[in-house]
Amino acid sequence: MRAWPNEYVERAAVSLGEFELIERCFARQGHPLGRAVALGVGDDCALLQPGPGMQLAVSSDMLVEGRHFLSTVPPEALGHKALAVNLSDLAACGAQPLAFTLALSLPAADVAWVQGLADGLFALADRSGIALVGGDTTAGPLNLCVTVMGEVPAGQALLRSGARPGDELWVSGHLGDARLALEVFRGRLSLPQADFEQARQAMERPTPRLALGLALRGLASSAIDLSDGLLGDLRHILRRSGVGARVERDTLPRSALMARQAPELQATCLLAGGDDYELLFTAPAAAHRAVLAAGRAAGVAVSPVGHITDTPGCRVVDAQGQPVRGALPRAFDHFAAP
Amino acid sequence: MRAWPNEYVERAAVSLGEFELIERCFARQGHPLGRAVALGVGDDCALLQPGPGMQLAVSSDMLVEGRHFLSTVPPEALGHKALAVNLSDLAACGAQPLAFTLALSLPAADVAWVQGLADGLFALADRSGIALVGGDTTAGPLNLCVTVMGEVPAGQALLRSGARPGDELWVSGHLGDARLALEVFRGRLSLPQADFEQARQAMERPTPRLALGLALRGLASSAIDLSDGLLGDLRHILRRSGVGARVERDTLPRSALMARQAPELQATCLLAGGDDYELLFTAPAAAHRAVLAAGRAAGVAVSPVGHITDTPGCRVVDAQGQPVRGALPRAFDHFAAP
Repeated sequence: MRAWPNEYVERAAVSLGEFELIERCFARQGHPLGRAVALGVGDDCALLQPGPGMQLAVSSDMLVEGRHFLSTVPPEALGHKALAVNLSDLAACGAQPLAFTLALSLPAADVAWVQGLADGLFALADRSGIALVGGDTTAGPLNLCVTVMGEVPAGQALLRSGARPGDELWVSGHLGDARLALEVFRGRLSLPQADFEQARQAMERPTPRLALGLALRGLASSAIDLSDGLLGDLRHILRRSGVGARVERDTLPRSALMARQAPELQATCLLAGGDDYELLFTAPAAAHRAVLAAGRAAGVAVSPVGHITDTPGCRVVDAQGQPVRGALPRAFDHFAAP
Repeated sequence: MRAWPNEYVERAAVSLGEFELIERCFARQGHPLGRAVALGVGDDCALLQPGPGMQLAVSSDMLVEGRHFLSTVPPEALGHKALAVNLSDLAACGAQPLAFTLALSLPAADVAWVQGLADGLFALADRSGIALVGGDTTAGPLNLCVTVMGEVPAGQALLRSGARPGDELWVSGHLGDARLALEVFRGRLSLPQADFEQARQAMERPTPRLALGLALRGLASSAIDLSDGLLGDLRHILRRSGVGARVERDTLPRSALMARQAPELQATCLLAGGDDYELLFTAPAAAHRAVLAAGRAAGVAVSPVGHITDTPGCRVVDAQGQPVRGALPRAFDHFAAP
């Protein structure tokens, strides 16, 4: 839509010329659009052509300065993450990415910053084989809204609702490093520089598990991507599936960096860390070897971390199978049976 | 994606509980999703199933407080407009709306305000036969990002690129009333209360011309929706089509309210008003009667306002066919040949 004339903008001091420069940062004349994009940027709408028998998977995420990222984040990292967290939703559905739109509100037209943002976005878009097909640029407080579109054969999307008692519970990669970086930013933790850099990479440059999502079609009974922490996101699967779960705390996959932290901090990061963007999924026990093979094919470790039960709620147990009590992260304390 | 813990939010003081209330304002348990929505809100992605042979049309628009609307706008009107400006893009492509997502950043959880916003959104969504299928809610400066999805038979979308010399230039409805309201808000114009209310309705509650867009499939050679004013948006058609145009100023459709304004103000509002959300389109002269019939079928007046020429650029002429000079709106002054 049209923005009002500039005299109505209180905090924004960006001229049209600057915005044209910014839009040029996102224009990629002649860049391939991919087989499913019939029309990209430049008309009233983009046009997508999903394959025959395909459903379109759609997800939107909005990133706000001060809430989802600090103003000091490198723009390349922000561009990467804005797309990565959306692609992670496609991965959790087992969808193949097709295209994305970007709506961007900017307080000022710092072209070098915007070019960095575009570089980060497009590096991940190119690796994922997708094109920017539309969007919007406006003056205002810094805000990025990405909408991704992917395709999945009708009936084959991985949903949150398919977990069944007896299924194994799996997680990809390892958990919690992003939370370590957050604890440092919060001033609650101090890490050696190299460790902090590793944790910050996990926070700023998550890898959407697209290949794994595709490989799990027909194998996983349910899936979700981990953005709010394992216990919080597991709750969504349990509610939608009408089941419970037992999580074996000591099997949760962790980096060597995480394994060096205090046990209580490890529990917080692993069980309620947030910003992991790994896949949490369930599969019938009979599919155990096939799931391991899917992980190998997708180039990411997958770890069994518990089971689905018919008793509602979630129990976290230690290596002896005893319920973990006491020093559990708050997300767990507040987690009652559905 | 996950928002950071609240201690990182400087200007936002919204608790999770309040956000759950807000999300409840947008939840519509059991409400029909429409034939093309296989899965709505509540999983990682929504799933859409376009009909066989259909392309998916996608458009995103972001609305920022102070830039696209004043803080005093009634929330119902804001909800209506956020969806209407997006549906208008689908109309301009001749697409049938299927679904939309909403990403919302809110400085505070005023539930009555959010309920008003939801009421305005859903009233228009219901009239348009579409469902909210996903989105995001976060704390932050007020910002709405709507993405609409529609479908159109492959190859039948109305594009900006199809205008040919000799085509007639058409516009739906009447133009410029929204700009009158803006002039009042800017303190440059005073109107009697009833006139101001009429103008404000035009600004706050535009009607997306969806039925007309559908009726123009196979008839119109190009189309765009009017958000930036007739001359500015016409420029997009001319550039993409590689043609020029002659606009007959005195044929531009106007309300009785507009016809009572000073000639110079009329010219500004009609030629460069903005926020009209009418369709500007071209069609072969042989289709003249069919276009009139399409307008009747869609319940909206359509007016021929000029012609497409092979001479680049845009000429505005008066009733005698003489070029209009002098008191033309700035958008026209800056408008050179492509």
